[in-house]
Amino acid sequence: MNYRMVGYLLGVILSIEAALLFVPMLTALLYGEPLMPFVFTILILLAVSVPALFLRPKESRFYAKDGFVCVAGAWILLSMFGALPFVFSGAIPSYVDAVFETVSGFTTTGATILSDIESLPKGILLWRSFTHWIGGMGVLVFMLAILPSVGGQAIHLLRAETTGPQKGKLVPKMKHSAMILYAIYFALSVLMAVLLLCTGMPLYDSIVSTFATAGTGGFSVLNDSIAGYHNPAAEWIISVFMVLFGVNFNLYFFLLLRRYKEVLKNEELRVYLILCMAATAVIAWNVWDSFASAEGCIRTAFFQAASIISTTGFSTVNYDLWPDLAKTILLCLMVVGSCAGSTAGGLKVSRVILMFKNMGRELKHLVRPNSVNVVRMDGEAVPTETQRRVSNYVCMYVSFIAVSVLLLSVEGFGFETHFTSVLTCINNVGPGLAKVGPAENFADYSVFSKLLLSLNMLIGRLEILPMLVFFTPTVWKKT
Amino acid sequence: MNYRMVGYLLGVILSIEAALLFVPMLTALLYGEPLMPFVFTILILLAVSVPALFLRPKESRFYAKDGFVCVAGAWILLSMFGALPFVFSGAIPSYVDAVFETVSGFTTTGATILSDIESLPKGILLWRSFTHWIGGMGVLVFMLAILPSVGGQAIHLLRAETTGPQKGKLVPKMKHSAMILYAIYFALSVLMAVLLLCTGMPLYDSIVSTFATAGTGGFSVLNDSIAGYHNPAAEWIISVFMVLFGVNFNLYFFLLLRRYKEVLKNEELRVYLILCMAATAVIAWNVWDSFASAEGCIRTAFFQAASIISTTGFSTVNYDLWPDLAKTILLCLMVVGSCAGSTAGGLKVSRVILMFKNMGRELKHLVRPNSVNVVRMDGEAVPTETQRRVSNYVCMYVSFIAVSVLLLSVEGFGFETHFTSVLTCINNVGPGLAKVGPAENFADYSVFSKLLLSLNMLIGRLEILPMLVFFTPTVWKKT
Repeated sequence: MNYRMVGYLLGVILSIEAALLFVPMLTALLYGEPLMPFVFTILILLAVSVPALFLRPKESRFYAKDGFVCVAGAWILLSMFGALPFVFSGAIPSYVDAVFETVSGFTTTGATILSDIESLPKGILLWRSFTHWIGGMGVLVFMLAILPSVGGQAIHLLRAETTGPQKGKLVPKMKHSAMILYAIYFALSVLMAVLLLCTGMPLYDSIVSTFATAGTGGFSVLNDSIAGYHNPAAEWIISVFMVLFGVNFNLYFFLLLRRYKEVLKNEELRVYLILCMAATAVIAWNVWDSFASAEGCIRTAFFQAASIISTTGFSTVNYDLWPDLAKTILLCLMVVGSCAGSTAGGLKVSRVILMFKNMGRELKHLVRPNSVNVVRMDGEAVPTETQRRVSNYVCMYVSFIAVSVLLLSVEGFGFETHFTSVLTCINNVGPGLAKVGPAENFADYSVFSKLLLSLNMLIGRLEILPMLVFFTPTVWKKT
Repeated sequence: MNYRMVGYLLGVILSIEAALLFVPMLTALLYGEPLMPFVFTILILLAVSVPALFLRPKESRFYAKDGFVCVAGAWILLSMFGALPFVFSGAIPSYVDAVFETVSGFTTTGATILSDIESLPKGILLWRSFTHWIGGMGVLVFMLAILPSVGGQAIHLLRAETTGPQKGKLVPKMKHSAMILYAIYFALSVLMAVLLLCTGMPLYDSIVSTFATAGTGGFSVLNDSIAGYHNPAAEWIISVFMVLFGVNFNLYFFLLLRRYKEVLKNEELRVYLILCMAATAVIAWNVWDSFASAEGCIRTAFFQAASIISTTGFSTVNYDLWPDLAKTILLCLMVVGSCAGSTAGGLKVSRVILMFKNMGRELKHLVRPNSVNVVRMDGEAVPTETQRRVSNYVCMYVSFIAVSVLLLSVEGFGFETHFTSVLTCINNVGPGLAKVGPAENFADYSVFSKLLLSLNMLIGRLEILPMLVFFTPTVWKKT
């Protein structure tokens, strides 16, 4: 492994984190809250990262595995240092709890160990939600956008951090693309915050809710999540933006370039929107009787379906009390997730489409062994290699879930709790069912289980392989 | 499709079923119970099957898809006709319930809709357990063994009915092999029944328990399953035989041929036995406090682990009351199942091994892109095609589980019940957890859900593809 290069890149990442911490620090300043938690963290980050910046090597050979280790290491370190403000401020006294919360933030999961959120300082809560916004688009993509001279290795970083089965489409003009994607992300976020302001939501809450929505994270500053605002207009706006942030950002890029055809023929987008609508319809029908008005029922059903399929995890209702059908639909949406190249988690709609097309192909081949069966997506043939990767990914994903549920079961909180804890963490959603339902939290889990669930969140966000490579001993041999 | 050939083969199968029905009929005669349920069923079977025997075509072209349709059709028809004695005798008045029970029998699942088993006639109960014994080895393999002139099509039938990722190893001398496998099956069954007799178990119960164990089915004639005998020696014997019937029968064949090396180097066998032992150890540790004696604890833990990994589904304890860890281990064993080429269900140990080796290969390839990574099993390279099939199989398996749980959730029995119902049915185990735990039954499910779960059992037994092909409309076109 190219240690110097990885060390250098990690140094850059951590100094970026130090810079980003100024945002919550200024918020704390504004609200007259103690600045020390942020100052200390920034100093520690600089003490670690500045020396690493001098590691910059002349040897620029950088392999895929180095990129994977670098990305996995970056996400782990970001969370480990990002947890410090919570500990220093006393908001979350236990370091492991703080790491869980920060991993949950950066991976845009939104699972929390906090029970009384409203009692915490505004600066700390802003940092908590800001991690969603940072993690949503990917920190390393950000680095690509701002760093002047990351050379050939950039592709490996991008591959490891972006989501979905088909990677690197925008690679030739990668750096330029990263800038544009971030601009779109920023513009959509500003638009959303302004719209929320117009509904009468306070500025601070609008910004924080936007961070959590844009990153499809789900941390809220109210104990009752979005339900606490009693603001139907804001609920509609948040619902629509949750759906929007679950769309592949490349499509917004195409919209800007007026390549409408490519947007219209995008199968993933169509299936994603159909799933949203279908889930909303069935859930609304299933919970119809528990609402006074049709608007309220449809609004809540749409909000919850959008929240779960976009893997945001906001709630306007304790859906753990809903009938089994509605709950099971939500669990299925968790697994499917949103579009590749969005800020959301889950298997990704395109992977699920490819999985089903692959099964169809297998079946067709059996029925007509001599016919040529090519799996097509958006009109183009999908390489066999991509299909193989999709199947393997699903196998790994299922294996991780099984092993994690088995390890969690030592806790004795019941199968539904263990299973949905893993499902909600690996898919970066946030709340699960039963003891980790939307009105509950993850505080009661042991240290081991919290670390296991944190690993699940990282595995889900980075799509398994970078984390696996990181924990492969042979990777760490010197070259 | 070659309609005449499929019709002819189905005719043969149904006439075999008519012949097999003489066994429970003679039992009924012996115990002075009404014979009419069996006589009527036999007459109906003959009325349907004898005309079909004249369909025998000169055109013997027979493709893989025809074999798949034939096998799926055979299992569906066997269950539909096999359900009649239950209805005619009044033991199970509802035809759908009877079909559920019969599918559960033939697929060696052992899930029941009966709450009071002991009140039923001996002949009926013998038929119920006999279906396990018939279904365990596969009806069509039996046909191959006895039919003088099934030609080139035999391979397609065998492929569709036998289990596991690598098929047709014994193909060149297939017919001969089928005979030997049946002989081993028969000999092991006789040995087991004799041993059970020696423990003081009555003859009838010994035979019925042997049917259920050999087929890894799990139907018992006591309401409390094997616990009702209060016979520790019998529990040990049944445990050991459950494990034995979960072993690939080809290995017994090799033992007979004194090819011990091939048995010793068999990875699937080793992993299977390790899983049995490890599960027993952890479960025993987990439930230690609830037993008065160490022997009782280990015996029960071993019995339950063997019962679930072999997908038999007998119980000597209501394990639904066990701690979460023990229960989750049992759920994992359900999914893994036993060895390919045994009478058991589940994903099969070899598939799980290949899945993990495949993941390891993918990881190795990432870490060292230029190294040659071949997946090996029992010292031989596994073809890429086989690995691809394993991954695809797992994807299909997971998709079916997800869709089935979603459809079942309309019932509103709780997620744990729906999830474990599907898991226990698709893996051909029998009992699940919560409302379908070992002390409960499947009676409360609606007609739709019972048919859905029956489909899951058939899908699990025939390993998905034959059932999928059967329900593909284009297959039914005339050629």
